[in-house]
Amino acid sequence: MAADRPPIRLGMVGGGQGAFIGAVHRMAARLDGRYDFCAGALSSDPERALASARELGLDEERSYGSYQDLVAGESSRQDGVEAVAVVTPNHLHFPVAKACLEAGFHVICDKPMTVTVDEARELRRIAGDCERILAVTYNYSGYPMIRQARAMIARGDLGRIRVVQGEYVQDWLAENIEANGHKQAEWRTDPARSGAGGCIGDIGTHIYHLMHFVSGLRTEALCAELTTFVEQRRLDDNAHLMLRFEGGARGMIWASQVAPGNENGLRLRVYGDKGGLAWQQEQPNELVWTPLRQAPRKITRGGAGTVDAAARLTRIPAGHPEGYIEAFASVYTEIAAAILARRDSKPVDPAVNFPTGEDGEAGVAFVDAAVRSSRAGAEWVNL
Amino acid sequence: MAADRPPIRLGMVGGGQGAFIGAVHRMAARLDGRYDFCAGALSSDPERALASARELGLDEERSYGSYQDLVAGESSRQDGVEAVAVVTPNHLHFPVAKACLEAGFHVICDKPMTVTVDEARELRRIAGDCERILAVTYNYSGYPMIRQARAMIARGDLGRIRVVQGEYVQDWLAENIEANGHKQAEWRTDPARSGAGGCIGDIGTHIYHLMHFVSGLRTEALCAELTTFVEQRRLDDNAHLMLRFEGGARGMIWASQVAPGNENGLRLRVYGDKGGLAWQQEQPNELVWTPLRQAPRKITRGGAGTVDAAARLTRIPAGHPEGYIEAFASVYTEIAAAILARRDSKPVDPAVNFPTGEDGEAGVAFVDAAVRSSRAGAEWVNL
Amino acid sequence: MAADRPPIRLGMVGGGQGAFIGAVHRMAARLDGRYDFCAGALSSDPERALASARELGLDEERSYGSYQDLVAGESSRQDGVEAVAVVTPNHLHFPVAKACLEAGFHVICDKPMTVTVDEARELRRIAGDCERILAVTYNYSGYPMIRQARAMIARGDLGRIRVVQGEYVQDWLAENIEANGHKQAEWRTDPARSGAGGCIGDIGTHIYHLMHFVSGLRTEALCAELTTFVEQRRLDDNAHLMLRFEGGARGMIWASQVAPGNENGLRLRVYGDKGGLAWQQEQPNELVWTPLRQAPRKITRGGAGTVDAAARLTRIPAGHPEGYIEAFASVYTEIAAAILARRDSKPVDPAVNFPTGEDGEAGVAFVDAAVRSSRAGAEWVNL
Amino acid sequence: MAADRPPIRLGMVGGGQGAFIGAVHRMAARLDGRYDFCAGALSSDPERALASARELGLDEERSYGSYQDLVAGESSRQDGVEAVAVVTPNHLHFPVAKACLEAGFHVICDKPMTVTVDEARELRRIAGDCERILAVTYNYSGYPMIRQARAMIARGDLGRIRVVQGEYVQDWLAENIEANGHKQAEWRTDPARSGAGGCIGDIGTHIYHLMHFVSGLRTEALCAELTTFVEQRRLDDNAHLMLRFEGGARGMIWASQVAPGNENGLRLRVYGDKGGLAWQQEQPNELVWTPLRQAPRKITRGGAGTVDAAARLTRIPAGHPEGYIEAFASVYTEIAAAILARRDSKPVDPAVNFPTGEDGEAGVAFVDAAVRSSRAGAEWVNL
Repeated sequence: MAADRPPIRLGMVGGGQGAFIGAVHRMAARLDGRYDFCAGALSSDPERALASARELGLDEERSYGSYQDLVAGESSRQDGVEAVAVVTPNHLHFPVAKACLEAGFHVICDKPMTVTVDEARELRRIAGDCERILAVTYNYSGYPMIRQARAMIARGDLGRIRVVQGEYVQDWLAENIEANGHKQAEWRTDPARSGAGGCIGDIGTHIYHLMHFVSGLRTEALCAELTTFVEQRRLDDNAHLMLRFEGGARGMIWASQVAPGNENGLRLRVYGDKGGLAWQQEQPNELVWTPLRQAPRKITRGGAGTVDAAARLTRIPAGHPEGYIEAFASVYTEIAAAILARRDSKPVDPAVNFPTGEDGEAGVAFVDAAVRSSRAGAEWVNL
Repeated sequence: MAADRPPIRLGMVGGGQGAFIGAVHRMAARLDGRYDFCAGALSSDPERALASARELGLDEERSYGSYQDLVAGESSRQDGVEAVAVVTPNHLHFPVAKACLEAGFHVICDKPMTVTVDEARELRRIAGDCERILAVTYNYSGYPMIRQARAMIARGDLGRIRVVQGEYVQDWLAENIEANGHKQAEWRTDPARSGAGGCIGDIGTHIYHLMHFVSGLRTEALCAELTTFVEQRRLDDNAHLMLRFEGGARGMIWASQVAPGNENGLRLRVYGDKGGLAWQQEQPNELVWTPLRQAPRKITRGGAGTVDAAARLTRIPAGHPEGYIEAFASVYTEIAAAILARRDSKPVDPAVNFPTGEDGEAGVAFVDAAVRSSRAGAEWVNL
Repeated sequence: MAADRPPIRLGMVGGGQGAFIGAVHRMAARLDGRYDFCAGALSSDPERALASARELGLDEERSYGSYQDLVAGESSRQDGVEAVAVVTPNHLHFPVAKACLEAGFHVICDKPMTVTVDEARELRRIAGDCERILAVTYNYSGYPMIRQARAMIARGDLGRIRVVQGEYVQDWLAENIEANGHKQAEWRTDPARSGAGGCIGDIGTHIYHLMHFVSGLRTEALCAELTTFVEQRRLDDNAHLMLRFEGGARGMIWASQVAPGNENGLRLRVYGDKGGLAWQQEQPNELVWTPLRQAPRKITRGGAGTVDAAARLTRIPAGHPEGYIEAFASVYTEIAAAILARRDSKPVDPAVNFPTGEDGEAGVAFVDAAVRSSRAGAEWVNL
Repeated sequence: MAADRPPIRLGMVGGGQGAFIGAVHRMAARLDGRYDFCAGALSSDPERALASARELGLDEERSYGSYQDLVAGESSRQDGVEAVAVVTPNHLHFPVAKACLEAGFHVICDKPMTVTVDEARELRRIAGDCERILAVTYNYSGYPMIRQARAMIARGDLGRIRVVQGEYVQDWLAENIEANGHKQAEWRTDPARSGAGGCIGDIGTHIYHLMHFVSGLRTEALCAELTTFVEQRRLDDNAHLMLRFEGGARGMIWASQVAPGNENGLRLRVYGDKGGLAWQQEQPNELVWTPLRQAPRKITRGGAGTVDAAARLTRIPAGHPEGYIEAFASVYTEIAAAILARRDSKPVDPAVNFPTGEDGEAGVAFVDAAVRSSRAGAEWVNL
């Protein structure tokens, strides 16, 4: 999975020391050799930014104290970055991505893409106007078995879809750790930085994206009960939702960050009139297929019965587990394929698939609808 | 688990050839040697009733053509039955149980106890007036690990309960088998015999009962979306519910009979501020306990960490799986303890615990509320 | 699974208060209603024998103080027992079974059938001469999924068998509990009562039986290393074996009673040139089938793909777990079919299958060979 | 996990187009940013070597047609490689590694390190004389939960070790695919390129290494039965072994490449008098700990109860699975720590741990002993 051409020059905004997701983006960019990480505005704290840059081996002159400086500095270089990864807290996604797109950089933005639906729409418009790629790292869509599930449903293996059940359950916010200086918890529970959704925005959007990515169905309406169980917390930490999909399918989402014993319990089950599929992120190399009136089958990454859409994102043989970083890297590598096609003025291979601004906007609209529904006493809200 | 005294003389209404649950009740009654099955009105079809009685080794003169005959015949015998198991289709539970209670027999009734809430209330009143035991076979409450979960929650191992997630998922009605003469499917999808709830009544009540039995919480309100996915079916075959419990806990139920690959997927998860518990009926000898910030533990029936409430219902050592029949038998044996205490005019051992008319009524009220909510477009309904 | 005829009158030797396996035999006899347990010499201690008989509701005049008395007493009754279950410590199996067979009773003997190979041969001869049934409770052969595996291999689903891996692993003897009055541990670790094999005889014989029952292959030679890990223990508590089967297949056995965390870990895996099968006793309702170059399939008791040989021993639908007691009961019910056929002078249904004296002798010969091999420094020994 | 200093310049011998393990080594080297892959003799076929180099973005002048050329070319450059990864078929490991060490490069060699024990000893001597690092990629030792297990045993959590059970089971050689041009199968089943061991050398050495790495015990003697099940195959494809460890512990190994349904089934179980541990490579983020007489616990990578030795090799939070590539990368990163310390003339952090020439030699000696034992009819052989 490497290529006869120079890697994509990549910048990053956010992701300095102490951040979690920035390091993941860097490993994801590095794994397949498609990117060269060469510039960053890694922290809003200039000292931390520089220390982070040094630790990461960045050229000091390409370590910037602000995203504005990065945009200015890289725009003026012959060898300036071609794409920027935006891994700040949520409220900064919009201004940073906007500035980058307008400067002509492709943007790889963490989720949720923006804090408001209006921002999301505007960002999409800007990307369109600038003819730049706007990608959103719904990274779980990079798992090969998720691609397998999507392809199997698309070709009719499950028949007409009836039920889609999604869960994303964690426990790390079961206590009020944001009061004790836990950096990750702090901004995620702060409406000013996170937006109106807590758990629903941080992880609910992931499972929502997967449910649609895999099933191919659009949600028409939802009913959400968002709850804050931990005292003094300012945003929801548990979300219960019922969903109505186009065509009559029904579904549920349970997203929680207060369920002890659940580390990163993203789980998806889809049932149609001909069969079902079940997948869970913590055992990502397996997909259970249950054709109606037949013995259940375990499809494994790289194993018997896998389709091209899964094989494309598979690096090593069956039984040699690939994990979270590989899935994230696959999203980066898919994005790279699109960026490189642009560079060469060629069409993108139609097999390439990654979450775009459209997915980003759908995620933001979902959080918005869920918050509105819950505030109205868990009424049904159309999407 | 046997005794220095004659077994309880047991009659049965329903449960003839071709029935499923009647045979289960008989095995459950037999396993621990507490009952002597000696009379029956096993079918509304007299020939089938007699053939069934012969196959089961019943004395022919105690095989009756109707429940009325059974009540009359057994009432007039010195050695008449002391208790009657009611295992007919749902709509007959009420008249049969009523007649039996009024004749002085204890009643062991399958679920849902009745078709309407009014009937449920009346049956409880009659049982009270007659001073007879009215038990309802929410048989899953007989699993030792369910008793373990209940006891652990009651003593505070999970802290304050926040979330209760229930599922009961099957696939046997994924197609319109009732149109092809499937006896079990026929009456269960017929409102005249099953009542207003299909899936919600047949299996939804089981998980609802367990959620309360284990958590100790009362439901205050629910929002239900009942769906009929199979064409021409007359009752719901899929149910999605959100629940609000007293004290602020929240929960969900997914019950379905159209999810391919799910045989009898009854699953329960409870989370409090100190830990969680997870159990699934298809691996009933295991209970996963997840104390907050500690490694998850697997508690096994008969293994380390089990409490008296579970040990009481355990017949054989850990690692030697007990299953569905044993759990059902434990409910029968618990009921036997109460019946034998009555016989001897002694108080019932306070450790004895089985579902009663109160649980039966709660189940009927739940179905009623779910049907009302769903018909109103999945609005919230108080309980 | 019941019948238009009187149940078989069953006696029992051993199995009084404090015993484990006697209670299991009684539940197994009771579950399907084929036996009437009516006489016993339940303990060599007369007081315990009588107390046990009372607790179990036996007629006091049919509670005997010794097996000799039972044989004499029951032989002289019109309604005397037809069959006797022998559930004493191992060293008494031979004299008790011999006396019962010679008195004309069928014998259902716990395993290992005898302590020496000579005894085993003699018992088979006596049973043949007396034309009585001699059954040995290799109870794990009663699991439906074991029958499924056997049938699938017999019809060639796995092709030519190459490898058979067996394990039977427990932990209850990880400490010297026999020194602290643990009754079960005491006799099992006492060569005078248990024979020359400890773990190898108590549980090794079970997995050895299953390996042959399922694969249909005969063992030609073995190499055994028996170890005693717990200080002051007098018999082996861990056994490692390599096996050579006829036709070139190879296998291993690991049996242990000192492996913490293993409750009753009986596991069997068989591989041929067309596929594999894997089963474990603690999840007995599932059989994993792995056809070569295809996705693995989970076959469940009562589910899709089950064969007649498994369905015969299935009482309730898929997803409603049957366990250890049911499997044990199935062995009893198979034996009952043979006894009832004798009673009626009819041929036994060829589908009926239970472990006989031949299996019993094979088990004893296995223990004998393993002990000899190990004493010789784990040399290869022919069988 | 990155650093304020230039990455290590890495060359590679072998690993061109069509190879599997070369690509894995490159991803492993890349993931943590410690290496700069800059030179290669990627294939013995010059055209393939050049095409591979181009695809991988190597500078053409640093793509060599033979390992001798690479050694000569890189030795003469100021910016020549510091370390060479040797990923050829087994028989070339020795000459390549020897040449590289003698040229002053550190060597990262795939396993088995050499084909004969004499070669292994000589290579270790050369590495010592040249004061170069000789590392062997027993990559499974890079899994955090393997480090966890090792640390728990070292600190006594399991007490005195009694039993160590190892398995490494695959199915990809269940048919004679080497006859049909399968490149990987071809050389692995060819004694001239693979050495005297087939399955035992290819995968048996991995589980053997892990058993010792984790338990800390040395093997004193073994008894091996190597079998070739596939017709016309020239090396073993199944291995059964019994092991005697110093201090009286006992163990078994089952290694197979012909067991359908097993993809990469490396599994390890260790039992002592205080508890047990179980791990399997296909679910590498979990370690099951079974303290005696306590409920089993699941320790997860990054979760509660993990020790420093595991945390060091952990990149992302619990529940976000790390897999095979990450474990391999951790071995590379551990080696990098040692190389960088040499570069800086500093002592290596004592926490750093990777398999060395000593482990490599032990693996070769194991294969040698197993082959000798098997050829002698599965006799015991001392180590």
